[in-house]
Amino acid sequence: MKRTVQEIADVVGGTVIGDGSRLVSAPAPFEDAGEDQIVFAGDASYLKRLSETGAGTVLVPEDPGSRDKSFIVVANPKVSFIQVMEIFSPSKAVTHKVSPHACIGDNVTFGGPAEIGPGVVVGDGVTLGAGCRLSPGVVVGDGVSLGDDVTLQANVTIGHGCVIGNRVIVNAGSVIGSDGYGFAPEGSTYRKIPHTGIVQIDDDVEIGALNAIDRATNGRTWIRRGVKTDNLVHVAHNVEVGEDTLLVAQVGIAGSSKVGNHVILAGKAGISGHLTIGDNTIVGPAAGVVKSVGDNEVVSGTPAMPHKLWLRLMSLMPKLPELKRTVTQLEKRVDRLESDK
Amino acid sequence: MKRTVQEIADVVGGTVIGDGSRLVSAPAPFEDAGEDQIVFAGDASYLKRLSETGAGTVLVPEDPGSRDKSFIVVANPKVSFIQVMEIFSPSKAVTHKVSPHACIGDNVTFGGPAEIGPGVVVGDGVTLGAGCRLSPGVVVGDGVSLGDDVTLQANVTIGHGCVIGNRVIVNAGSVIGSDGYGFAPEGSTYRKIPHTGIVQIDDDVEIGALNAIDRATNGRTWIRRGVKTDNLVHVAHNVEVGEDTLLVAQVGIAGSSKVGNHVILAGKAGISGHLTIGDNTIVGPAAGVVKSVGDNEVVSGTPAMPHKLWLRLMSLMPKLPELKRTVTQLEKRVDRLESDK
Amino acid sequence: MKRTVQEIADVVGGTVIGDGSRLVSAPAPFEDAGEDQIVFAGDASYLKRLSETGAGTVLVPEDPGSRDKSFIVVANPKVSFIQVMEIFSPSKAVTHKVSPHACIGDNVTFGGPAEIGPGVVVGDGVTLGAGCRLSPGVVVGDGVSLGDDVTLQANVTIGHGCVIGNRVIVNAGSVIGSDGYGFAPEGSTYRKIPHTGIVQIDDDVEIGALNAIDRATNGRTWIRRGVKTDNLVHVAHNVEVGEDTLLVAQVGIAGSSKVGNHVILAGKAGISGHLTIGDNTIVGPAAGVVKSVGDNEVVSGTPAMPHKLWLRLMSLMPKLPELKRTVTQLEKRVDRLESDK
Repeated sequence: MKRTVQEIADVVGGTVIGDGSRLVSAPAPFEDAGEDQIVFAGDASYLKRLSETGAGTVLVPEDPGSRDKSFIVVANPKVSFIQVMEIFSPSKAVTHKVSPHACIGDNVTFGGPAEIGPGVVVGDGVTLGAGCRLSPGVVVGDGVSLGDDVTLQANVTIGHGCVIGNRVIVNAGSVIGSDGYGFAPEGSTYRKIPHTGIVQIDDDVEIGALNAIDRATNGRTWIRRGVKTDNLVHVAHNVEVGEDTLLVAQVGIAGSSKVGNHVILAGKAGISGHLTIGDNTIVGPAAGVVKSVGDNEVVSGTPAMPHKLWLRLMSLMPKLPELKRTVTQLEKRVDRLESDK
Repeated sequence: MKRTVQEIADVVGGTVIGDGSRLVSAPAPFEDAGEDQIVFAGDASYLKRLSETGAGTVLVPEDPGSRDKSFIVVANPKVSFIQVMEIFSPSKAVTHKVSPHACIGDNVTFGGPAEIGPGVVVGDGVTLGAGCRLSPGVVVGDGVSLGDDVTLQANVTIGHGCVIGNRVIVNAGSVIGSDGYGFAPEGSTYRKIPHTGIVQIDDDVEIGALNAIDRATNGRTWIRRGVKTDNLVHVAHNVEVGEDTLLVAQVGIAGSSKVGNHVILAGKAGISGHLTIGDNTIVGPAAGVVKSVGDNEVVSGTPAMPHKLWLRLMSLMPKLPELKRTVTQLEKRVDRLESDK
Repeated sequence: MKRTVQEIADVVGGTVIGDGSRLVSAPAPFEDAGEDQIVFAGDASYLKRLSETGAGTVLVPEDPGSRDKSFIVVANPKVSFIQVMEIFSPSKAVTHKVSPHACIGDNVTFGGPAEIGPGVVVGDGVTLGAGCRLSPGVVVGDGVSLGDDVTLQANVTIGHGCVIGNRVIVNAGSVIGSDGYGFAPEGSTYRKIPHTGIVQIDDDVEIGALNAIDRATNGRTWIRRGVKTDNLVHVAHNVEVGEDTLLVAQVGIAGSSKVGNHVILAGKAGISGHLTIGDNTIVGPAAGVVKSVGDNEVVSGTPAMPHKLWLRLMSLMPKLPELKRTVTQLEKRVDRLESDK
């Protein structure tokens, strides 16, 4: 299914420069494209490297001057490129197709068509919105509520009672609603604290693969609207993650911490328990946050500190051996000065 | 199902102060409770903040003086609170309910009633104690032995031959008994070392969600009585974890290391291979242990060092730029002194 | 099934010293063996400790002098020990045994005998080579291609369209082909970037338990021949991992980075996005690589630096308090010298 450059320009609302009748067969990565493919040049640095792509068609933010390819000028090439990808791999409409090899519990309510794969187990009293897709091996506990257009990839587990919003995507193998890590010391052993709370995930959240998001002791662990998590992320009991916040791969958030809106926790960052991370704050890769952080901050390192201070320390660290030598020499020089007095 | 304050006090063995006839509907978090709910004030700091909870009933370690709520005085409010949670969400007795959608192998022995969900696969020659619960999607390999009252949550995998004790809980998605990471160099490639050992998990262990605990090369990887692990923990082949030890989220322990009893490995800590960690030792969050550690120590940082030294270093680090400036100035001053001589 | 020392020597091509008729019942760990077991002494340090093993038979690289056990002299005792393990636990030949409780899609092609466990779901248009083993709970998406002798352990997920080579082993719970972490900002929210690429895994790769390897945005995420990954490893979209490279437990590699051949990323190491790691390079445990690294380097620390510099810094760090004191004293001494002038 090929499209002309002009047809693509019409969908993304762009202006063609060059040959609008050129046929495009697929979107491709910038460095790796052939003449019948389309790529995007998101900013000035890519515009300078147009000769490095073999693509015949490029989405650009402005007229690049050159005329050896077809160009489509758009306001935001990256977002337009997503639209182009959707042209070439349109998502199929959900049909009501429940596999005979799925096990559906009692009193399950369907809000509309749903696709339920073989080996799926849906507990009693579950509510599914319209347009849900449950891939093979998914387990949905009793009393779970799924909104409209929820996608649960293969082998995902949703624990009993959890509440999932609309258009939520959970990638394969993730566990939502495991018991939190709560034990009370009793002599030298530990007694399990029952976890009667839930996980609530609001609209438009995407959870990566193999995430573990624990249910609250009481109340809820709360992943708010628009949060996107990467793979292997840990979210402990009673945590709250604010709207449109990004949790990059292998992040861990300990119990009861509250992360604000539009926060970025970079890969492998860790947040101790009972802290608050303010809105729009960025926590650097592998940083270890042990004190609450305000709004609009950038912190790095372990224990986390202002990013600028951390950069300064990191530039000084390799100079430590020299500093040590200088101090040793200074001691000798001062020794001499003192003995010369 | 509401209970009076007096009924609850009778169960936990406490003394009522105030209205014993008040009706309680549920336990709740301290900050988030309503008048018909019960919370606990575990220590003095909570006792000072009694006005901050909306709860009508509070478990307290001593008479708080105030009379505007109902109080139940108990020795250990946190443990009593667990009992209260168990009153309101009693665990159901296990009935012998094996789903027709489970696959049970040959020569499987049941020690008593067991609940086996749809989609569960139990291999040949497996032994199950009385009171086991296997949630949907659980896979139990050939020859596995499960003790009494074992709970395996959804999509857990137990590899062939592993031995699981009594009252063990494994949270969803965890893998017990994967092959260890062992390869012998053969020229420039690697040859897999067969793993013929097992994982042995003793009584009263709880494993978090999405843990990976590898089988031994020979012999056993051994998780001893009372160990509690959090989510996304890695335990390599031939590791031994001592009794009542806590492995917090995203901890990793490399091959053949032995961790003592009552140890705490805080979140994201890593232990290199072939080390010994003594009893009652605490390893700080994200610490990287590269040498063995004795009993009763507290270590932090990477590479791990005594916690007090680490604290001192961490307080000095932000002063490095100033130290560098001071040394540069000293050099100039000593230059002047020398030239003035 | 016991074997004589001579029979074992014949299989591994070694020379017997001592009693060749001694019966051996199993391989065992060095520290933990009985008289009817066999162990290996891989190098000089083990040869010195021969009296510490209870084993009656030892694979050795040279005549150890002592005569109180049976010895088999071989070039590479570790590799010969693997052969011995294979003697005592031979892998069973794959028979064509497809469980009636598996769900096989339309147009699935078998290249030879395959073992497919209960609860396995194989999508439409999947190709399986000869000798594949799919354990219970495995989910293979539409259009996946598996080579010969592929082993997928329990609850593994392979996403649609992924291409898996010959003799690949994927340990339990791993996810191959989840969507990459790609979102384009649209105002204050994020729009999902469709991921139309695949994961390609070449021959002789072993993937640990609970790995998450994301599909490419376009094109492929590429795990090349002979790569071995440990547990809980994260590989982002469009990453390339070179031949015979080792990714130890809890490693994370961010998007589009290229890791060379024969590289070792030690446990918990992290690689930022869009970097290149050269051939034969070693990245230390928990190191955080933020700049590309050339061939044949050894780097450690966060941010990663040459290993020797890092060792020097780590030895200096504990001396920081002393350095600080020395500088303070120097200041006082220089004060005095200046005032004495």
